[in-house]
Amino acid sequence: MSGSSSRRPQKKKVLTGRKILVTAGPTREEIDPVRYITNHSSGKMGYALAEAARELGAETTLISGPVNLTPPAGVNFIAVETTAELHRAVKQEFKKTDCLIMAAAPSDFTPLAKAKEKIKKDKNNIRLTLTDTPDILKDINRLKKKNQLLVGFALETENALSNARKKLKEKNLDMIVMNNIRDKGAGFEHDTNKVTLLRPGKKPVAWPLMSKKEISFKLLEILAGLF
Amino acid sequence: MSGSSSRRPQKKKVLTGRKILVTAGPTREEIDPVRYITNHSSGKMGYALAEAARELGAETTLISGPVNLTPPAGVNFIAVETTAELHRAVKQEFKKTDCLIMAAAPSDFTPLAKAKEKIKKDKNNIRLTLTDTPDILKDINRLKKKNQLLVGFALETENALSNARKKLKEKNLDMIVMNNIRDKGAGFEHDTNKVTLLRPGKKPVAWPLMSKKEISFKLLEILAGLF
Repeated sequence: MSGSSSRRPQKKKVLTGRKILVTAGPTREEIDPVRYITNHSSGKMGYALAEAARELGAETTLISGPVNLTPPAGVNFIAVETTAELHRAVKQEFKKTDCLIMAAAPSDFTPLAKAKEKIKKDKNNIRLTLTDTPDILKDINRLKKKNQLLVGFALETENALSNARKKLKEKNLDMIVMNNIRDKGAGFEHDTNKVTLLRPGKKPVAWPLMSKKEISFKLLEILAGLF
Repeated sequence: MSGSSSRRPQKKKVLTGRKILVTAGPTREEIDPVRYITNHSSGKMGYALAEAARELGAETTLISGPVNLTPPAGVNFIAVETTAELHRAVKQEFKKTDCLIMAAAPSDFTPLAKAKEKIKKDKNNIRLTLTDTPDILKDINRLKKKNQLLVGFALETENALSNARKKLKEKNLDMIVMNNIRDKGAGFEHDTNKVTLLRPGKKPVAWPLMSKKEISFKLLEILAGLF
């Protein structure tokens, strides 16, 4: 046992025997061989969730887009780059899991056509048509069995609560973790987050600013009670 | 003196008394508060150049876009995010330098309009109009004094040599370092690179695959002879 785990109060292994699938990080969508579209997701929330799930006793799989984090020890790790790859990996792994937590921030858009060669600078005012990427949660819903839990994240910059409520209902989720990048100390890159929990038929619960690891333990302990 | 530097043969400090300005990494251009356009530049070539310049005795400044590298010790460091910020920083620093090496891969395009709020997924097939970012080397040329050296990098995926020759001439550079991401072990993310050197009135010289640090020393030793 390591020094740090012996000093930290041992968490009750409430997820022993459970399989948890977590997605994390952004995806990248190529414009040409050099350039791509991505987003500010750091992967920290998803990695904290995967680490916490494993510490709570779950057999944990982490599917991650390109980030600068080391996969937590003891976690099955699958690296992806694009939203299409993430989609395929989630579909593959979902059958084997008890709970999918979509903490990833897959790119919602991808260039309609990828240029095979680097686009030259002299073609100024180029127009890029972006098309929707597959809606992973919507698609996974069709495969969802009664005993499987689906958790989504919602990142909004306006009408946050009403958008999150809509997503919870439309995607038939068991929980939405909503955050707002405009909140201080919350969202991308930070080690802390400020989230609001939404569950069907329940009032939203706003949590104070906490470390992403603390949030992970609290979320997973609630999920353990939903199985 | 550290163990590694005492084992390594000491380089002759051919740049003592010189000021070298190096740019490195990609830039990021915001689409909305969440998404951005960037490129695969890792910053490794520029960081290796800055480190080598300092080791050869130069007073070195490194201007870098967002990368996952630690700035070399003993180097003045300026962090930037967008091409416009890089442009401003280079203009500011260029006056004080003897040689500018543009190893950065600034985004050549930026969204014409930045959305203030996160673009919703239901607006599918969104059209993004990209406009040219400032041409830093072209602009710097106007400020260039006779005793200052300008070095550019060229990354091409097709017609590499003719495009690089054109850039050398049009931008009035003292040297172009050309590489091709299609070459094995060369370009982005790699610790090695395979470059071809172009200088006005000289035949291009293709170097074999080398570490980015070795390439840096060789380039800087050539530059030292050009002052």
